[in-house]
Amino acid sequence: MVLEHAVLEVVPAQETAFEEAFAAAKTLISAAAGFRSLHLARCVENPNRYLLLVEWEQLEDHTIGFRGSAAYQEWRSLLHHFYDPFPTVEHYESRVTIR
Amino acid sequence: MVLEHAVLEVVPAQETAFEEAFAAAKTLISAAAGFRSLHLARCVENPNRYLLLVEWEQLEDHTIGFRGSAAYQEWRSLLHHFYDPFPTVEHYESRVTIR
Repeated sequence: MVLEHAVLEVVPAQETAFEEAFAAAKTLISAAAGFRSLHLARCVENPNRYLLLVEWEQLEDHTIGFRGSAAYQEWRSLLHHFYDPFPTVEHYESRVTIR
Repeated sequence: MVLEHAVLEVVPAQETAFEEAFAAAKTLISAAAGFRSLHLARCVENPNRYLLLVEWEQLEDHTIGFRGSAAYQEWRSLLHHFYDPFPTVEHYESRVTIR
């Protein structure tokens, strides 16, 4: 399992439109092969900042599978114009979990 | 529920010592009032970078309760010297979850 991580800086005053677009876009990613879970959250201290966390079965499910898909082109056109600057996307492997 | 988020830049070559210190420190935070869950993960692209996610029942359980506790002083002395620069800690409220 690998965790995709991105901090999304949404153009100020476009937060509501972004959340509406995300509601439409989310099924594009959740239908991808290797998708495990998704969490979108909004920053308390900086309300135009969002955190996107997506669990994938393996790294390539995101970097090759999803990003190489037709669904990703639709995801891009729905969401990418909200970001300024464009986010850095990284991947993380679990070390410690306490529940 | 609120999610504490920090990207931790660990001094290069101190990753193993950091993970060992974290294993000792984790019970300090998991015993705090309002603690819900913790996830520590290591970056694939930048292996001296870690992601810390902690769920709290409410913001003040972290910012006032934990940070004002004796346990936090111990947490600091175990962990803070590994970070360069010192991390920005922010809090996020959930918007979308898919499991």
